[in-house]
Amino acid sequence: MGSQMTDGKTIILRVEIDTNIAQFGRAATAIEQAKGDIIAIDVIHTDKNKSLRDLTVKITENGAAERLTSALKAIPGIRLVHISDRTFLLHLGGKITIQPKTPIQNRDDLSRVYTPDVARVCQAIFEEPSKAFTLTVKRNMVAVVSDGSAVLGLGNIGPYAAMPVMEGKAMLFKQFADVDAFPICLDTQDTEAIIATIKNLAPAFGGINLEDISAPRCFEIEQRLRDELDIPVFHDDQHGTAVVLYASLLNALKLTGRSIRDTRIVICGIGAAGTACTKMLLAGGAEHIVGVDREGILTADKTYENQVWQWYADNTNPERQSGGLAEALIGADVFIGVSAGGILTRAHIETMAKDPIVFAMANPEPEIRPELAEDIVAVFATGRSDYPNQINNVLCFPGIFRGALDSRATTINEEMKLAAAEAIASVISDEELSPMYIVPSVFNTRVVEEVRKRVIQAAQQSGVSRRQTRE
Amino acid sequence: MGSQMTDGKTIILRVEIDTNIAQFGRAATAIEQAKGDIIAIDVIHTDKNKSLRDLTVKITENGAAERLTSALKAIPGIRLVHISDRTFLLHLGGKITIQPKTPIQNRDDLSRVYTPDVARVCQAIFEEPSKAFTLTVKRNMVAVVSDGSAVLGLGNIGPYAAMPVMEGKAMLFKQFADVDAFPICLDTQDTEAIIATIKNLAPAFGGINLEDISAPRCFEIEQRLRDELDIPVFHDDQHGTAVVLYASLLNALKLTGRSIRDTRIVICGIGAAGTACTKMLLAGGAEHIVGVDREGILTADKTYENQVWQWYADNTNPERQSGGLAEALIGADVFIGVSAGGILTRAHIETMAKDPIVFAMANPEPEIRPELAEDIVAVFATGRSDYPNQINNVLCFPGIFRGALDSRATTINEEMKLAAAEAIASVISDEELSPMYIVPSVFNTRVVEEVRKRVIQAAQQSGVSRRQTRE
Repeated sequence: MGSQMTDGKTIILRVEIDTNIAQFGRAATAIEQAKGDIIAIDVIHTDKNKSLRDLTVKITENGAAERLTSALKAIPGIRLVHISDRTFLLHLGGKITIQPKTPIQNRDDLSRVYTPDVARVCQAIFEEPSKAFTLTVKRNMVAVVSDGSAVLGLGNIGPYAAMPVMEGKAMLFKQFADVDAFPICLDTQDTEAIIATIKNLAPAFGGINLEDISAPRCFEIEQRLRDELDIPVFHDDQHGTAVVLYASLLNALKLTGRSIRDTRIVICGIGAAGTACTKMLLAGGAEHIVGVDREGILTADKTYENQVWQWYADNTNPERQSGGLAEALIGADVFIGVSAGGILTRAHIETMAKDPIVFAMANPEPEIRPELAEDIVAVFATGRSDYPNQINNVLCFPGIFRGALDSRATTINEEMKLAAAEAIASVISDEELSPMYIVPSVFNTRVVEEVRKRVIQAAQQSGVSRRQTRE
Repeated sequence: MGSQMTDGKTIILRVEIDTNIAQFGRAATAIEQAKGDIIAIDVIHTDKNKSLRDLTVKITENGAAERLTSALKAIPGIRLVHISDRTFLLHLGGKITIQPKTPIQNRDDLSRVYTPDVARVCQAIFEEPSKAFTLTVKRNMVAVVSDGSAVLGLGNIGPYAAMPVMEGKAMLFKQFADVDAFPICLDTQDTEAIIATIKNLAPAFGGINLEDISAPRCFEIEQRLRDELDIPVFHDDQHGTAVVLYASLLNALKLTGRSIRDTRIVICGIGAAGTACTKMLLAGGAEHIVGVDREGILTADKTYENQVWQWYADNTNPERQSGGLAEALIGADVFIGVSAGGILTRAHIETMAKDPIVFAMANPEPEIRPELAEDIVAVFATGRSDYPNQINNVLCFPGIFRGALDSRATTINEEMKLAAAEAIASVISDEELSPMYIVPSVFNTRVVEEVRKRVIQAAQQSGVSRRQTRE
């Protein structure tokens, strides 16, 4: 998912007050006048002449930080020692740490986890390699791998700058699903080198989560790794988005009394995410999908250099519609946008079928802002957290990997993705379901548990589980 | 360091006792008669008919576990539910875990560590890549990398079976020096593929610890990575051993009143460790080193196909001695063995100079057992924990990486290794120093602090530090 507009940030000001000259009240007043909201005060040190305090200040206006800083500096007896940004402070030294599960307090401990006793464990795995799943971190470890080529809305910022996102993802894996995840940012953007590197480092891992790799390389990298590794490989930007989109659509269709088979769906933006969403919808039974990109409606009546578009034209649009977005939308039931901000108009929506469903997922700016059209739309969803119905990958990846690891699956297949989507949708009961509530919150703890359960079942039924669960 | 003989193992027996038929005392007696030592009893469940207990039993004789099991099974009313090995239990699911440094409890937390706020941190690193050292895990993260080709005394057991050793090493890094370390076991033994893979995954790491990679590939892999990466690359089997050996020798020389320059040193076993030890001794000022391997004394009078041996012959043995181990030892002050068990005899030692120093480091069986010669040797050291003076890499790698990371060093150079050795030696005061105590214990907490301090100084003085320390 892309980045979203921030509605404010928090800064921390360390101020030293010469108590013979100035009073704290003057600093507080200056901050408030500059439109800063003091939300916490920590006294760091104080003596009879000086007081050192950390002021946590929320600012919501552009330029407020600068105005506030100058105002403080102008007060005699007040010295601004430094100014920190809470987001940056949270990132100091990185966001994850490696912890031993047991302490090593004496020679006995040392000899069990390291030489000489560890040799017996190594020997057991050497004799029966599948024991790596029980006797090493492989049981619960996922690699979050990126080459930094398509990070959030920032584009090709490279492996060093991509690290904070991958570390954040590792935090989410742990927090939401108790999956150990380690960030790997690759210093290459060569397809073959990426494939070879990931294959070489696979033994320690029970799964590979690909992230923020640009199209079309992401397709080949994922496909080759799926073919050549015996652990799940999952490009979250494609499949995570597709699973949550499909879950949301299931609930929107239920709410508007539609069957997926008869629903006319327009997908705008045929890149990695748009294609993955389409494949998911086809697997779920959709029969009337029309894709639109810069050249208009994709149709089998034309040929395309872009192989993804050619595949798309050959596998969708059975009625061979032609034209642009406006033509595609006439009479359509569902608009799914994974394209660019502002491309959808109220006039477009007015040509759609009764009770239209609009999922405007472009980030940070949706294809159309909800306030411009919500009165004529039956169900509205976006990728943003500041509107109802956020379509957010965080609903999918923790639970789907939890289920895949727990079933020791060789892959994450279509059956498991459909199961994950149905699980996410099922968290909202018929009584709770409403146009403002078709997707559960990422903090709803039932999501991971439901996804895990159904993914394990799907893995077993589709024959890719390597383990009987103990439930 | 290689594996050592275990002097006993611990098993855990889960027994169910039908309290109407049998008493716990019968089980305890049977275990003791089979030479098992009950060291802990945990009651798992008990009701009026049954009692379920975990008995932790130490066994020291071969076959005791089997005798004990059969004896228990023969008692009416006692059922052996299962038997576990404490070392294996400790390895279940691996030995390390990934932990977020801060919890994600609400949407504010989520937006700071992940989208949208994380984008500002990414952008800052993109504009100034060196910020990766402050804003990502790179600041404190070391990769422990092996291809599983030369693991402990087990040989080429491959990447899956090597994982428990690398995980153990990651635990030691954290426990002893608060270094985050992640195990990477590579599914390739091709030199170029290993080099390319490590280079590709380097961005997340502040250092690379190579481990258990067989010679001669380990030399090229290390050298190439040192040349091509801007973070420290350290093959512990070579340099860790060399640093601790040199530290121990410094104290042994002090104890016997020798200067390193005049000391005649014989090194037996010219592989990766023997060569690294020799380079360290040369850097420390040794001038009389003679190497011995299967073909006898290495001398510049001969030519060798083995390039390591050729380098060795060209850079040691200035007097061009010839012959075998027996000839090399006549009049020598120091024997350093990194070869094979039992190759050194009491008769050999009797031909050495007065107050000979013997470091018999072969594992698990030393070149000569201390009890066979300690009465005619001034200082004896081995690689084993069950004799005094254990030469153990664990004394070096945590502290040397702690210092390298804290100085943000581009490399670990000779100056830093010499400094680490001097630091380890210095932990033992002149008053404490004795033939039975030339090397500190791995649990001596002063070791890491001393090594860190001197390594930082050496990094600064030799111009490879990228950071002013705040001490």
